Amino acid sequence: MTTILTIAELYPDFEHHLIQACNFSTSSSTLTQSMQYSLQAGGKRIRPLLALTTCQELGCNVEKAYPIALALECIHTYSLIHDDLPCMDDDDLRRGKPSNHIIYGQAHATLSGDALNTLAFDILSDPNTNLDSNTCLQVIAEIAKAAGYKGMVGGQALDLENENKSVSLSTLESIHRHKTGKLIEASVVSGALVATTNANTISTLRTFGQAIGLAFQIADDILDVTQNSQTLGKNAGSDLRKNKSTYPSLLGMKEAQKLLLTTHKKAIDALDRLGLPFTNLRNIADYIVARTS
Amino acid sequence: MTTILTIAELYPDFEHHLIQACNFSTSSSTLTQSMQYSLQAGGKRIRPLLALTTCQELGCNVEKAYPIALALECIHTYSLIHDDLPCMDDDDLRRGKPSNHIIYGQAHATLSGDALNTLAFDILSDPNTNLDSNTCLQVIAEIAKAAGYKGMVGGQALDLENENKSVSLSTLESIHRHKTGKLIEASVVSGALVATTNANTISTLRTFGQAIGLAFQIADDILDVTQNSQTLGKNAGSDLRKNKSTYPSLLGMKEAQKLLLTTHKKAIDALDRLGLPFTNLRNIADYIVARTS
Repeated sequence: MTTILTIAELYPDFEHHLIQACNFSTSSSTLTQSMQYSLQAGGKRIRPLLALTTCQELGCNVEKAYPIALALECIHTYSLIHDDLPCMDDDDLRRGKPSNHIIYGQAHATLSGDALNTLAFDILSDPNTNLDSNTCLQVIAEIAKAAGYKGMVGGQALDLENENKSVSLSTLESIHRHKTGKLIEASVVSGALVATTNANTISTLRTFGQAIGLAFQIADDILDVTQNSQTLGKNAGSDLRKNKSTYPSLLGMKEAQKLLLTTHKKAIDALDRLGLPFTNLRNIADYIVARTS
Repeated sequence: MTTILTIAELYPDFEHHLIQACNFSTSSSTLTQSMQYSLQAGGKRIRPLLALTTCQELGCNVEKAYPIALALECIHTYSLIHDDLPCMDDDDLRRGKPSNHIIYGQAHATLSGDALNTLAFDILSDPNTNLDSNTCLQVIAEIAKAAGYKGMVGGQALDLENENKSVSLSTLESIHRHKTGKLIEASVVSGALVATTNANTISTLRTFGQAIGLAFQIADDILDVTQNSQTLGKNAGSDLRKNKSTYPSLLGMKEAQKLLLTTHKKAIDALDRLGLPFTNLRNIADYIVARTS
């Protein structure tokens, strides 16, 4: 068993790997800067941390999961850049800084998002990943499905189409399971794929990932109402302004908070079934419920 | 040796495979329609045909290259959708039809481009591709590099930054080698990777791909001046309107046509060095020079 690093130790390690990975140049210096600006803007790094710690808490050297962690952050970052565009959610503040298109313009924001999307697969297919080819392909398949029309992009489209509409709870859950949930689920599963081939372990961790993915979004909806923009690092109250249905708007704040706790319990129950400590994964699940930004 | 299908036979076969591949649904019906609209809008299908015929002309069953052909067309199509956006080249006509954002709006055009980009890697990592894992990974690496900041997206960024500027011939070549050339080169090389591990064959076919990639763009610049919008299926004269440097504007029409022929010869010379007939590849190279749209 290798030493298990805490989340507090993994975070700066990931930032260090990210800075190294950002040490590239492109034929366009504006494109390079635009990509680096958003990658290095900070953030919770939930997806990479999930992949890294799932890998190590299953007994595998955490270094093996770094390409996956980087790829996940590339995809998450590209989705934020494109979501913030005026034609999409039109947000000018992200991670406490001006959105990418505010600094680099819409054309370069579109292109840097495109480049980061592709960069994820460039990183995962690099012959130096130290992962065997079968595992690499499984991870690519997992992440591509979670990020594309079957997952994140499908969810964002559904979200846009339901602005200014009153949606059912099941539609709201479908939006969030796709838009946010699938990539969080894939983060846990791809970290697991590096460490094990045990189908039961992978499927139980998938259940964990699905639950924390949903919990993350319920918490997001609650924070949008209860916190201010400075604490969030993005514009607060934006769901209300865009007339979007949310868990608090559909269920009321009290029931939304109750659902958050039930969903958190589902996640913890899944971990309990596997009989390993999973200290970090439990901490991340707790953080998702307790976070203020 | 399997039977070599002609380009005229491969084209409808590819369209058939593409229609089958388009038989998907997403959580958003608008997103699905938007993706299918652009994939099925016709087009020359140069990239898929290059991959398919390179594979078969090296003696391998063409069926093996279909996932690659589909992935290449997904990436090419996403790049057209995003390039046509108002914040980029702002073109309202593509493949003889209204551009994607004219029909589906900018938000869905952005998302369907994103989804097609990711779909390429979903297709390539599918366990049913019938390719061994190592080859799959090599192809993913080849295509990701060619499509991302090291290739197509980098070239598009450089192109945008040089609008309304007088550029040198070497900058123009760099723009085109990245923006159009790299993915055409990757189409040939990935078709070859399926069929052979011979490094000399792959590298010589890379030279062929680079030459026809450049020839394709020189021809494009010439056609933008000499043809009308109806023949081209996109707005003619757009380089001039956007004040973009082109081969005819930098060299004059006569020298541009001469460079087109020299570049075509480089491509044919590469094929000659390999001692195989490559009838289809020669036909595609000839078509690139002689095409009117």
